[in-house]
Amino acid sequence: MEFRVLKRCKSNNARFGEIVTDHGRLETPVFMPVGTSGAIKGISPGEAKDIGVEIVLANTYHLYLRPGHKLIENIGGLHRFMNWSGPILTDSGGFQVYSLSKLRTISPEGVTFRSHLDGSTHFLGPEKVMEIQRSLGADIIMTFDECTPSGAEHDYVRASVKLTEQWARQCLEEGKKNGQALFGIVQGGVYPELREMSAKGLVSMGFDGYALGGLSVGEDKHTRERVIKATMEFLPEEKPIYLMGVGTPEDIIESVKMGVDMFDCVLPTRNARNGMLFTNKGKLVIKNARYAQDSSPIEEGCGCYTCSHYSRAYLRHLFLSKEILSFRLNTIHNLYYYTHFMKEIRQAIRDDRLAEFSHGFYRREIKSL
Amino acid sequence: MEFRVLKRCKSNNARFGEIVTDHGRLETPVFMPVGTSGAIKGISPGEAKDIGVEIVLANTYHLYLRPGHKLIENIGGLHRFMNWSGPILTDSGGFQVYSLSKLRTISPEGVTFRSHLDGSTHFLGPEKVMEIQRSLGADIIMTFDECTPSGAEHDYVRASVKLTEQWARQCLEEGKKNGQALFGIVQGGVYPELREMSAKGLVSMGFDGYALGGLSVGEDKHTRERVIKATMEFLPEEKPIYLMGVGTPEDIIESVKMGVDMFDCVLPTRNARNGMLFTNKGKLVIKNARYAQDSSPIEEGCGCYTCSHYSRAYLRHLFLSKEILSFRLNTIHNLYYYTHFMKEIRQAIRDDRLAEFSHGFYRREIKSL
Repeated sequence: MEFRVLKRCKSNNARFGEIVTDHGRLETPVFMPVGTSGAIKGISPGEAKDIGVEIVLANTYHLYLRPGHKLIENIGGLHRFMNWSGPILTDSGGFQVYSLSKLRTISPEGVTFRSHLDGSTHFLGPEKVMEIQRSLGADIIMTFDECTPSGAEHDYVRASVKLTEQWARQCLEEGKKNGQALFGIVQGGVYPELREMSAKGLVSMGFDGYALGGLSVGEDKHTRERVIKATMEFLPEEKPIYLMGVGTPEDIIESVKMGVDMFDCVLPTRNARNGMLFTNKGKLVIKNARYAQDSSPIEEGCGCYTCSHYSRAYLRHLFLSKEILSFRLNTIHNLYYYTHFMKEIRQAIRDDRLAEFSHGFYRREIKSL
Repeated sequence: MEFRVLKRCKSNNARFGEIVTDHGRLETPVFMPVGTSGAIKGISPGEAKDIGVEIVLANTYHLYLRPGHKLIENIGGLHRFMNWSGPILTDSGGFQVYSLSKLRTISPEGVTFRSHLDGSTHFLGPEKVMEIQRSLGADIIMTFDECTPSGAEHDYVRASVKLTEQWARQCLEEGKKNGQALFGIVQGGVYPELREMSAKGLVSMGFDGYALGGLSVGEDKHTRERVIKATMEFLPEEKPIYLMGVGTPEDIIESVKMGVDMFDCVLPTRNARNGMLFTNKGKLVIKNARYAQDSSPIEEGCGCYTCSHYSRAYLRHLFLSKEILSFRLNTIHNLYYYTHFMKEIRQAIRDDRLAEFSHGFYRREIKSL
């Protein structure tokens, strides 16, 4: 994997760049839709491509439990299994172990936990997680980490950062597959000095990229931005920076200004399935009665397949009828919104007018309230 | 609407023909996928077209209850509402009133019933059903009928046939929209003499086509074939004949031999959602453990999108994970199977080898048992 910064903003830390993988090139800042179980919920890989999706995130935890990484490896790897020939990133499972599993026990070796599917007992540690990620064969893979909850106390988080650092080293030693890039995950909760410690520790080992984990887990927006800023200082400029699990368009634009290059979040896809659609004038709840007779598209001027072919009235009808097509058309629109939003951000950075773009974005948002 | 018989089988009553509507031409015998609420469950209109679907069936009863026919008319009609520019057939709601509604009361004027959605009281009769079907604007519309259950006694069915005949006359008088074709529905339960009475009564009024209703409602295969044969005698050769709600590939091929031109059934789409896939070697239950590691497509040599891109192993994984994409990929395959099957039947009729094709079909089926 190669990463190059092609342009930097003058007024903030935002940057436009490119990542080149064995499965293609993508431009940053980039948003990665979530394909938890090897499928972006609601759409096909062909649609993802048409929308402009450049890289898909899949979950190590989920694919390990079902259908199993060895099975996927035998079929020819995750790209082939899910029929997506573009870049893929797999997370390490750390976040899912903490948020989905019951009865987890952490030891220096890793985590013993119960599957959320059938309650069966499993163990994930740095060695296992690297084995799984080599089998899946994603282009970018992640170190195993402990994701501490937002309320965790300083002492606990400090010990946890040490553990995450040790696991990161083991992941590095365990080794990736040819062509894979391994990112280290910075933890440290809401404590700037622990974030610094975590970042410095990882950077000294030398990863292909760095992720900020343990955010968007309940902390407030102000705290999050403070933590991101504090962490960014200690990460190398020449490596891609990935903010895990973030977020809203607002969160993304603010983080881009601080230098973040990569994002993932279930928001556009999950909201789509709940009938909540992103527009430049704010969120549109498709089941609302006011759209019953509305023959206009979700958003006038939107270039997505859904807006080009369907009325709000039809989309409302599909949603109320629980038609499968509802999830799909809504997902196409929301992912197009996100992908297009990232494209606009990249163009704004290239044109040295990100601040202007950002002002315009907030003006539109305020107007619509 | 124009209908032309272009070729007749020498050894049986099968015929190859064409129907030309304002929304395009289609060839018969044809299978019509069911788009109950204005969407073929699981796929988009674009996919339906790619699969080779020539005409879609939508349900008057469902669209009347939700979102309402006036709303669809205001949006520009059903074709535009659901983004399907090809031919559409709407049934009259008779079958749904009898199978889905509670507390229905039949009078000479029509049927009062409770909605299966919210229990609200509604009335459908010939006048209303024609109003709804004009609003929806399908290319082929149906008369309002009483669908008698398979066990109904002779006296009841005779009276019902009279009522259905009276309603058919009222539908004819009520009038269709320019460009629409109106089909009369033959009833008469399992009694050949009542089927004859019903057919003769309708034919004397002169419809654009004729449908056989009240079949596939619990009667055995032998009875059904006897009833179809008895009815066909009294229907005009120059009009298209539609067997409602049928059926399996076996049912279709046998009915084609008796001269039936049009079919509809939820089988390919519903089975797809339940993970049951049609193949030339019989039905394949995708969740079976034997497919867990199977990297081959559903059916070797199948030209559908699903078989061209996905393994049984992936489809099994999607099904077990309840991914939305599972319903879609399975539906694409099953509808392709049906559409391709009809194409083969048409070609066999044109080549004067339907009997041969039929033998081959049953040999494959028997082999796979």
